[in-house]
Amino acid sequence: MGHRIGDASAPARLAGTDEGIGLDELALAARNHGLPLEALRHDRTPPGLHYVLTHYDIPYVPDDTSWRLTVGGLVRRPLDLDLADLRAHPQVTTRVTLECAGNGRALLTPRPVSQPWLLEAVGTADWTGVPLRLLLAAAGVEPGAVDVVFTGADHGVERGVEQDYRRALPLEVAAGDDPDVLVAYAMNGAALPPQHGHPLRLVVPGWYGMAQVKWLRDITVTDREFTGFQQSVAYRLRQHPDDEGEPVTRIAPRALLVPPGFPDFMSRTRVVRPGPVALEGRAWSGRAPVTRAEVSTDGGLSWQEAEWDSGTGHRWAWRRWRLTWTATPGRHVLSARATDAEGHTQPLEQPWNRGGFANNLVQRVPVLCTDTVADPP
Amino acid sequence: MGHRIGDASAPARLAGTDEGIGLDELALAARNHGLPLEALRHDRTPPGLHYVLTHYDIPYVPDDTSWRLTVGGLVRRPLDLDLADLRAHPQVTTRVTLECAGNGRALLTPRPVSQPWLLEAVGTADWTGVPLRLLLAAAGVEPGAVDVVFTGADHGVERGVEQDYRRALPLEVAAGDDPDVLVAYAMNGAALPPQHGHPLRLVVPGWYGMAQVKWLRDITVTDREFTGFQQSVAYRLRQHPDDEGEPVTRIAPRALLVPPGFPDFMSRTRVVRPGPVALEGRAWSGRAPVTRAEVSTDGGLSWQEAEWDSGTGHRWAWRRWRLTWTATPGRHVLSARATDAEGHTQPLEQPWNRGGFANNLVQRVPVLCTDTVADPP
Repeated sequence: MGHRIGDASAPARLAGTDEGIGLDELALAARNHGLPLEALRHDRTPPGLHYVLTHYDIPYVPDDTSWRLTVGGLVRRPLDLDLADLRAHPQVTTRVTLECAGNGRALLTPRPVSQPWLLEAVGTADWTGVPLRLLLAAAGVEPGAVDVVFTGADHGVERGVEQDYRRALPLEVAAGDDPDVLVAYAMNGAALPPQHGHPLRLVVPGWYGMAQVKWLRDITVTDREFTGFQQSVAYRLRQHPDDEGEPVTRIAPRALLVPPGFPDFMSRTRVVRPGPVALEGRAWSGRAPVTRAEVSTDGGLSWQEAEWDSGTGHRWAWRRWRLTWTATPGRHVLSARATDAEGHTQPLEQPWNRGGFANNLVQRVPVLCTDTVADPP
Repeated sequence: MGHRIGDASAPARLAGTDEGIGLDELALAARNHGLPLEALRHDRTPPGLHYVLTHYDIPYVPDDTSWRLTVGGLVRRPLDLDLADLRAHPQVTTRVTLECAGNGRALLTPRPVSQPWLLEAVGTADWTGVPLRLLLAAAGVEPGAVDVVFTGADHGVERGVEQDYRRALPLEVAAGDDPDVLVAYAMNGAALPPQHGHPLRLVVPGWYGMAQVKWLRDITVTDREFTGFQQSVAYRLRQHPDDEGEPVTRIAPRALLVPPGFPDFMSRTRVVRPGPVALEGRAWSGRAPVTRAEVSTDGGLSWQEAEWDSGTGHRWAWRRWRLTWTATPGRHVLSARATDAEGHTQPLEQPWNRGGFANNLVQRVPVLCTDTVADPP
């Protein structure tokens, strides 16, 4: 009996009742990271504050001059491009809010065992690159094309399957121009950091993070639907293990508060003083523009509409909202809720599936309002 | 009865037997992050891969032109400086490996409940700034000075004590020139990122992270030992809650492996093929130069000396070492161990204290060597 790749993997599972986060989940939490919610104040998230989720290792690419991007499959003129070739194409910069499909997973009951996000798996950046439609046009997509498959240089094992990270988009999304899908080489005006796909990544405005293939090395046009692991096994909305499940695609609406006041180190409870407290936050949706942000200061019993900052013209980026709350001594639970132009909004009861995907349950921020000026140490 | 600040805090505690990581610990793990160990390949750690530990919120400083640093207390000429004043002083760049004093905490039994680091709380950067001794000389330290107290702009609560983050160094360390303590305004040649102290931080080569005060706004020279929370309550080595405890100071030696091969997403088990596997890693000590790195491929039963890369001349930064291992099919546990010029080394049994500080137990990297070429999906 040999030692099989599959021996590295454990089966998918749900955490037991009251089961704490395990060392496997912690190993993911220690290397991936969220956006500390006070950083919602930045219009554009600086690298290091933007969320990161890497399935396998971050490839080490100290010299990107030999990096190649190939475009092939069902095309008339296969391409083999280096970064200089890509930079010679027209470039587009789009401000995009990216969110992990598993955001909020660790707050679910029962908890799917995977990367244990609370609510921080989000970030917004200016991504610069070549519109994918231009590369597809240059290659000449043949009739009968269905999917466009993207392969990254990150390599690993999931549930016994050794693989390069690989995802597909339907041709009409990949070749669309509203929005442009980008083959991006810059983030906030600088070369991509290693953890964001250096030297090249896909950016698909409006879609969850699994579509944003990093360390992009190949694009293949196919005449059938792609059924690779990350498309057909992972990233499906399933209630039972043997459901086929709907695919995870576009980002559901969400609003998040900048937690007001200041925190306790360990409990993360927020502390404010009585009186007016300036609340602010961000809201976004990958389905349609966000049109409404509401705030509750009583745990979701009542809601008050927040005011938008003047529009920034960035359709695919989060919007900032504000509201002043008059805090009174005691304990409070603050929440925010986004609604988009198609009427999608956020539920007060958890939307649950076995992968913990696309869960946009409203945030709850416990706040303690103190009426004592100072406590003796 | 009022609502006291202290109501935000819970008492310090140890996790129970088999108690998983709680949501409070996870909230810290999701916002702070370690260095993904494959990033040990970088001589200098890019921002976003370097570890970050923030006690409270990351201050939002979109415009640093009004930032002031005051130097006062037991000095003849108190200073009130802006960034331009600081940049007018002579500048020094030092490559420094920083490590959190709590690195390895989540692997301890019993586990102190706090930021649950595994082994990734480390990073190395070039820090540029003004030697602190020059500022102290400009201010003119009076006779009788004992400690130099550093105050950051980050504000929060710990164990019922509302505070700005504040730490002290003995005068002889603060005013020393071997090494220079830096008031740093640049990391790897660029302005400090928000999470690393923008616009100004302290860098104390050789000391654990708690000494590296970020968002530095005040320096006060005192005629007695500083007894603030982060000096006298936190960051002490205690076996029992009522011990006074020794202070945490300099970084104990540690070696870490770049985990070889590729990972399983969830178990993080590493997979390699049979045959020669190039192992590499880093080693460092804040006490004395590291002189020896050893590797074990049998769980610590036997050790083999690794080879150093040619010296980089950076005394306060990690050193790279290499060793080739011939992998055979089966499961293995790899470890690395550093020893410094003063003979400090790493234990095979956990060094335990109630804070989980300065624990440099040797790393264990489980590896599966497969002898099957490919598994059917």
